Amino acid sequence: MITLRKIQEAAERIRPIAKRTPVLTSASFNERAGCEVFFKCENFQKGGAFKIRGAANMIFSLGPEQLRNGVVAFSSGNHAQATAIAARHVGTKATIVMPTDAPRSKVAATRGYGAEIVTYDRMTEDRIAIGKRLAAETGATLVPPFDHELIMAGQGTATLELLEDVPDLDALVVCGGGGGLIAGSAVAATETKPDLRVYGVEPEDANDTWLSMQQGMRVEIAPPRTIADGLRPTSPGELTFPVIKERVERILLVTDDEIRETVKFVLLRMKMLVEPSGAVPAAAVMFGKLPKGFQRVGVIVSGGNVDWEVLAGM
Amino acid sequence: MITLRKIQEAAERIRPIAKRTPVLTSASFNERAGCEVFFKCENFQKGGAFKIRGAANMIFSLGPEQLRNGVVAFSSGNHAQATAIAARHVGTKATIVMPTDAPRSKVAATRGYGAEIVTYDRMTEDRIAIGKRLAAETGATLVPPFDHELIMAGQGTATLELLEDVPDLDALVVCGGGGGLIAGSAVAATETKPDLRVYGVEPEDANDTWLSMQQGMRVEIAPPRTIADGLRPTSPGELTFPVIKERVERILLVTDDEIRETVKFVLLRMKMLVEPSGAVPAAAVMFGKLPKGFQRVGVIVSGGNVDWEVLAGM
Repeated sequence: MITLRKIQEAAERIRPIAKRTPVLTSASFNERAGCEVFFKCENFQKGGAFKIRGAANMIFSLGPEQLRNGVVAFSSGNHAQATAIAARHVGTKATIVMPTDAPRSKVAATRGYGAEIVTYDRMTEDRIAIGKRLAAETGATLVPPFDHELIMAGQGTATLELLEDVPDLDALVVCGGGGGLIAGSAVAATETKPDLRVYGVEPEDANDTWLSMQQGMRVEIAPPRTIADGLRPTSPGELTFPVIKERVERILLVTDDEIRETVKFVLLRMKMLVEPSGAVPAAAVMFGKLPKGFQRVGVIVSGGNVDWEVLAGM
Repeated sequence: MITLRKIQEAAERIRPIAKRTPVLTSASFNERAGCEVFFKCENFQKGGAFKIRGAANMIFSLGPEQLRNGVVAFSSGNHAQATAIAARHVGTKATIVMPTDAPRSKVAATRGYGAEIVTYDRMTEDRIAIGKRLAAETGATLVPPFDHELIMAGQGTATLELLEDVPDLDALVVCGGGGGLIAGSAVAATETKPDLRVYGVEPEDANDTWLSMQQGMRVEIAPPRTIADGLRPTSPGELTFPVIKERVERILLVTDDEIRETVKFVLLRMKMLVEPSGAVPAAAVMFGKLPKGFQRVGVIVSGGNVDWEVLAGM
């Protein structure tokens, strides 16, 4: 079970690689939102997203023999880069399973960190099966994107830092994809400060955790089309969902238009680049989805990896 | 004369309004530049640029009678907003002289801070004369954009903070427009750490300070067209130039294409929005204009106010 202690251990373990990201505020965002908002800026994190926290926590926990056999991950996005960076840091080989149509910039960045790329066809092949087969064949350790205790504990460290910098928050807002970030954040938040309320946010079109919370059990949805490409998992994890169910007040929903407007507002007014997935919690606060009455709200900005063409087309 | 003491006093004076902005680093920028770079991020400053430091230092130094008569400034850009914000903070009236063709977003922002806007025709009218006439008629105090000791001292406070956070820099790189920022920065840097080398940077097309340094006296150039709209003054100031001449090693030059590429690199890799003028020092470092041999380089990111259309068209 994931505990505060394990998150604190993760914080120690990843210190050599993860940045302590700044917490930023914005008078114009506060005015628009009607409360004081504190942004934990994981878009400035190494690799451009919070993912290094979980990947490094898991990879730095491996023993010498495991490290000799390398690691495998499947991801077209931020988890791929994070796994490659953490593996390089300890001198172990990383093999990343990426779709043939993954953005070239992400493939290049992942290869640039020294990882070997194995491609697959998204329409006809199963990336999880490929990852597991590679792991079985080579003895490599599979580093899952969210559904593992060490991954969740690592992701929770961002909230530990936020609460050290701003102890007196009354709400925390986090995006929900597979659930690693929100599960880790919720444990860090509610164990540190039991009266802190934690809210998840999903795009309306990728509402698997929202549906799962309604029904009290994991629900699988059809592949969503939301612009928030990091939040497209079709169901919360086996390990992440019970934590979310226990510790998260509820899931809020935002539209893709609200996400786009938030990306632009944060860019032009706060001067920082967030990817669509990274803007989802801020969108919920900006568009009044959070229940009224909160004064000091923490928002996890999960990442900032977005291609120029996508941005310029917004 | 501007002294370290006056910059330290300015730091105390502006504390109620100016943010202590973060210092960010980027492994990918360092790799590209070949040295370790520390970015002092004034794009996250209140009003989106360093200008609040100087404007607040001057306005907060005014006596009760002066405050009753208000302040006047002429600026189409960041100094207008900064003056309006600082004036509102002390409850004095701000009148800002802006060209009829100033970007609507900047006029709206300045008005939003409670300032009165007086427009003029850039082709047929003289903004300095209008500003002086308004000041004479109403008894208001003119807050100049750079050529005043209190303005220079205020702008120098960003470098004081940077050196508190990263004491062991061996070079500091700052953009040169009218020269308030670089003059203040150079005094703060060389008085705190005499072996720290200070470099100015200008767009090739707006090389008035470069020319002035060559000739040892202030040179006036024709109105430049550079994309770096904050660096378009046609000569360094009467008060700023002697300080620059004494304390700045030399002026480096960058092209508009180098500025554009730097804006994009900083946006996509470092996840932060800098305006073209704000990217000028980073461009000099990224494109190898700085003499070789420096290990730890401070870069002042002066601001991040850029319109969406300008950005998307880059």
